[in-house]
Amino acid sequence: MEETIHLEQVLPEKIEERSFAIIGEELEQMGIHLKPDEELIVKRAIHTTADFDYAANLVFSPDAPSLGIQALKEGAVIVTDTNMAWSGINKRKAESLGCQVVCFMADEEVARAAKEQGCTRAAASMEKAARLFGGVQTAADDDRRDGKPSNDTENQKKPPVIVAVGNAPTALVKLYQLIEEGRFHPALIIGVPVGFVNVVQSKEWIISRTDVPYIVARGRKGGSNVAAAIVNALLYQTSPGR
Amino acid sequence: MEETIHLEQVLPEKIEERSFAIIGEELEQMGIHLKPDEELIVKRAIHTTADFDYAANLVFSPDAPSLGIQALKEGAVIVTDTNMAWSGINKRKAESLGCQVVCFMADEEVARAAKEQGCTRAAASMEKAARLFGGVQTAADDDRRDGKPSNDTENQKKPPVIVAVGNAPTALVKLYQLIEEGRFHPALIIGVPVGFVNVVQSKEWIISRTDVPYIVARGRKGGSNVAAAIVNALLYQTSPGR
Repeated sequence: MEETIHLEQVLPEKIEERSFAIIGEELEQMGIHLKPDEELIVKRAIHTTADFDYAANLVFSPDAPSLGIQALKEGAVIVTDTNMAWSGINKRKAESLGCQVVCFMADEEVARAAKEQGCTRAAASMEKAARLFGGVQTAADDDRRDGKPSNDTENQKKPPVIVAVGNAPTALVKLYQLIEEGRFHPALIIGVPVGFVNVVQSKEWIISRTDVPYIVARGRKGGSNVAAAIVNALLYQTSPGR
Repeated sequence: MEETIHLEQVLPEKIEERSFAIIGEELEQMGIHLKPDEELIVKRAIHTTADFDYAANLVFSPDAPSLGIQALKEGAVIVTDTNMAWSGINKRKAESLGCQVVCFMADEEVARAAKEQGCTRAAASMEKAARLFGGVQTAADDDRRDGKPSNDTENQKKPPVIVAVGNAPTALVKLYQLIEEGRFHPALIIGVPVGFVNVVQSKEWIISRTDVPYIVARGRKGGSNVAAAIVNALLYQTSPGR
């Protein structure tokens, strides 16, 4: 086979660079021009799936990428809804920024709460995240409060939160409710659950909000790998190096 | 939004069942009829990606699903090329069968070997897997040896190996070489790396072999999530229950 199927010779450390170049070339051939602040996110989603649909289905609230990057620079807590997404996030890079990456899907308390409430563990894990990390004020909120002194324990000590949902639409629906109830105010929601039951709807719920920044993969597609790729794309834009 | 976007009411424990029913209906509408032994694998790949391309691009060597299920029942070692794929595999189910799930991507020795050899860590991790688990004879090999007594330490004590590659084509290329050199004989290769550099070619190399069972996602698509989904689809067919 070595003779009939030709391998491209690329050094290990150059494979990703070459991949991104190919993605860029093909997007250009398709006549697709990405916005500068969204470009590396969209390309990384395509890189992780080989699916160019993400050039069309990823939708961003205004300034979502820069707000996400800012939150990471402030040492955000990154909450995922799957251990797979957790695994896919570059923890070394996250930790270098003081960011913590957490997933409560294997948490005993979450399993118990889900059983008691008849909800999914993913939904219960969002409840837990809101309880631990909720009540956070964003920089924008602080501005709106016009210098009114904030409550130190409530608003100052907690880091911003980025929630990355790659699997469970029930997690997005729960997030919507928690925000509605004023119990959670993530700095960014990455809403890319995948699937066939309430996935499309849950994403439209998040897109309908004007008070929370989001990056959403409209439609059925998404996944834990896409969630991790988007987080990594933001992480890699905080500073050079991995 | 609750009023304008309607959520389908499905109990948490019924979401997957409902998803598979939708996938089945849509495949039928597309006029796609899956082979019985491949059906649950293809549907789970679609379930994890919402991408119906997998109905066309997943290719199977003869009896690959049943050989994979047999290997799992015999307590196979499952080797993955990413921690994400490792995370996505149902370890409880695997362990209930005596199967071990391993990934060497974070292994110090592998990192060192990759650096020394100028290869990817994924390729070096396949070397390590071959060293630890290689030289295995399959049931088919035993039959071919016509009752010739086998060497206990070499052939009998080592479990069969399933290699699930969801990310790195370099891992597949290395696997091809290890098999060629007689150093590794996996019971099944799940070859679903994703991407743009040598991904298509590495899969065709595996497909060209007639001596190793494979399940391959032809083309560029695949991923750690797809690799895990295929392993889980096989695991769930070994016996009822998760």
